[in-house]
Amino acid sequence: MKIKMSNVAQRSVGIVGFGAFGKLIAQNLYGHFDLKAYDPRSDQRDVAAELGVTFTSLQAVARCDVIVIAAPVSSFEDVLTSIATVCHPGTLVIDVGSVKVHPSDLMEKYLPDYVDIVATHPLFGPQSACDGIEGLKIAVCPIRGLQHWPLAAFFRKHLGLQVIMTTPHDHDREAATVQGLTHLIAKVLHRMGPMPSRMTTRSFDLLVEAVSMVQNDAPEVFDAIENANPYSAGIRRKFFDLAHELGVELENNA
Amino acid sequence: MKIKMSNVAQRSVGIVGFGAFGKLIAQNLYGHFDLKAYDPRSDQRDVAAELGVTFTSLQAVARCDVIVIAAPVSSFEDVLTSIATVCHPGTLVIDVGSVKVHPSDLMEKYLPDYVDIVATHPLFGPQSACDGIEGLKIAVCPIRGLQHWPLAAFFRKHLGLQVIMTTPHDHDREAATVQGLTHLIAKVLHRMGPMPSRMTTRSFDLLVEAVSMVQNDAPEVFDAIENANPYSAGIRRKFFDLAHELGVELENNA
Repeated sequence: MKIKMSNVAQRSVGIVGFGAFGKLIAQNLYGHFDLKAYDPRSDQRDVAAELGVTFTSLQAVARCDVIVIAAPVSSFEDVLTSIATVCHPGTLVIDVGSVKVHPSDLMEKYLPDYVDIVATHPLFGPQSACDGIEGLKIAVCPIRGLQHWPLAAFFRKHLGLQVIMTTPHDHDREAATVQGLTHLIAKVLHRMGPMPSRMTTRSFDLLVEAVSMVQNDAPEVFDAIENANPYSAGIRRKFFDLAHELGVELENNA
Repeated sequence: MKIKMSNVAQRSVGIVGFGAFGKLIAQNLYGHFDLKAYDPRSDQRDVAAELGVTFTSLQAVARCDVIVIAAPVSSFEDVLTSIATVCHPGTLVIDVGSVKVHPSDLMEKYLPDYVDIVATHPLFGPQSACDGIEGLKIAVCPIRGLQHWPLAAFFRKHLGLQVIMTTPHDHDREAATVQGLTHLIAKVLHRMGPMPSRMTTRSFDLLVEAVSMVQNDAPEVFDAIENANPYSAGIRRKFFDLAHELGVELENNA
């Protein structure tokens, strides 16, 4: 089963979920594939047209050569059961969520054996990708079939991404620190109220920039990172315990 | 009492404490003033000579037109009592520490009435100033006399600094968040152990960069920021309480 991802003019890519991330995918795949998209919110039709994407039914999207699931976590299982009965043999199904263990299990469970699966996590969002995605990172977990090879080559050659080949468990273990801590600190700082902007140091400016990049993420993203990643609770407890310990130390020294 | 800081060729500046920050001051004032420095560690004599600074006694430094105290917090009172008996009328004494309320009180208490006092906080350190200090920020608190005017003009015109005129209390209130939080988060992350460097997001990279800028600061700096700033304990408690609250919320949702 050799799929030439570089010879893709005729290949169709169907995007399920046309939110901020679905649009980002469309912008970056435009010109490489025949693009279709489905979203339950029909008001996305005009935006899709502007981006050169055919807005259509979930059934039509599920018959594409490649299906990219960019739907909210809450609808993930419904999307899988819907496309499972429609997609044809050799189809490549890709997800793009922030956690990988649980969605990979679901894709293996619901999608028929004749469908190839690659779990991915683009380590960027609409905000960090505002100047383009070249040089940014994407984690790629091969789940079923061999299409991860041409897919990774496409990401490197045509999109200029840094590809990190990994497994769902290795991914989630590392992401629990990388994303778990960033979102946790961002949430706490957000609750502290407006941050000073006048008498700031370079390191504080960087800290504020870091957290502001994730503070506008959808609540589902925070929820997925903190609750759907099996390693997050451990990292979180460690952070809170060490913070508490430091607090006690400082009170005793005061 | 008009002091022309721009006409400074003959003016002498004495630096008390020739650690990393004392050296940074010397590098940036070189060519503007006749520079002298004192440090109890006599092995700093050669480094001083290389930077065009006369390494001398505390008494000689205390007879300069401007005295900059860049000594560790622990020796601050000793330095003040030593220079108080030597410095001549019209001398300008400046400190450069990370907190301002307590040191300002001490300077007012120990230094004779005929000495002018300006409390400053350069909002940068040797690491953030490695590419030069132009454009960086300095907080300036007038404490006694009028020499803060020519001093601020010198900072702006000759060093290219952004001058923030403030009071010790306003400074410490804002710094408790700016520096208190940065150092607190840096300390907790440091205790968590080595951070991932492979599968990182842009926001996590910024977070790591932010904390790494302060993780090499001297322990006295952390101590001053967390314990000598009267507003730090409140900010810290707020941070720890909100972190704990979020932790409980996430446990309940899990």
